[in-house]
Amino acid sequence: MNRHSQQLCPRFQTAINLIGKRWTGMLLNVLLRGPARFGELLERLEVVGDRMLSERLKELEAEGIVERRVVPSHPVRVEYELTDKGRALAPVVDAVAKWAEAWIVLDPKVAQAPKAAESDCDEAKPHAAARVKRA
Amino acid sequence: MNRHSQQLCPRFQTAINLIGKRWTGMLLNVLLRGPARFGELLERLEVVGDRMLSERLKELEAEGIVERRVVPSHPVRVEYELTDKGRALAPVVDAVAKWAEAWIVLDPKVAQAPKAAESDCDEAKPHAAARVKRA
Repeated sequence: MNRHSQQLCPRFQTAINLIGKRWTGMLLNVLLRGPARFGELLERLEVVGDRMLSERLKELEAEGIVERRVVPSHPVRVEYELTDKGRALAPVVDAVAKWAEAWIVLDPKVAQAPKAAESDCDEAKPHAAARVKRA
Repeated sequence: MNRHSQQLCPRFQTAINLIGKRWTGMLLNVLLRGPARFGELLERLEVVGDRMLSERLKELEAEGIVERRVVPSHPVRVEYELTDKGRALAPVVDAVAKWAEAWIVLDPKVAQAPKAAESDCDEAKPHAAARVKRA
C-alpha cells in the first residue's frame, strides 16, 4: 500500500501517507494539547472505536511520534504523549486549522449539531493547540 | 463515513477528512506548482490509477479546491488548476514538506529506489511549491 512515485519527493510521500491516515490528524490535534489516557482520547475523538484508536496509537508509536508512558501512581496510569517528532507536527495541524477556519463552510447537518464542538475551534486555532499543556 | 465528534472543532474535522484522503496531499503538492493536464498528473503521481485520480479531482472540484479549465487551443486542452481556496492550502503542504525533511528517515527499500525522486524534494521545500507557476 505504500507505493511511491519515483518523480516526487519520497520523504513528502512518506509523511503524507502517515499523517493523512483516517483519524490521525484529529488524534494529533488532541495530543498537541497535552498527554492523555486511552479513555480520554476515546472520549474526545468520540467517533473512533477502541480497536481503531489502538491501531493508530501503535502506528504512531512505531513511527516515534507518540510515546506510551506508564505513570508510577496508585493505581498506575498509562498516558500517551507526543515525542519531539510528534510535537514538531504542530505547524501542520495549525496550518490545517487556519485553512479550515478561513475556507470550510459546514455541511448543514454538521452545523445543526449541538454547539459543543464549536467551542473547540478556538483551541484549534493557530498556536493555541501547540502550546497548551496539561498543568 | 463523515461522522463528527461533537467535542472537536467541526471545521477542523471536515478539513482533515478532506485533505487526508489517499493521494490528495500529493495531488495538491503537484497542483501547487501550476495547472496540469490529466495525463501530466497521472505521470507525476505515477502510482495512482486513472479512476482514482479522476475521483479525487471530482471531489476537489466539488469542494471548490480544483477548477477544471478548458483552454481554447487547437486541439482544446483540459487543465486542472487550484482555485484560491486550493492555493490557500500551500502553508499546509509547506508545513508537511518541512516536517518531512526534518524528521522522516526513509525506508531502505524506498531509499534504494532510483534517485530521480530525490531531486523533487527541493521543489517541495517551503515556499518553492507555492510560488512556482508554469511559465
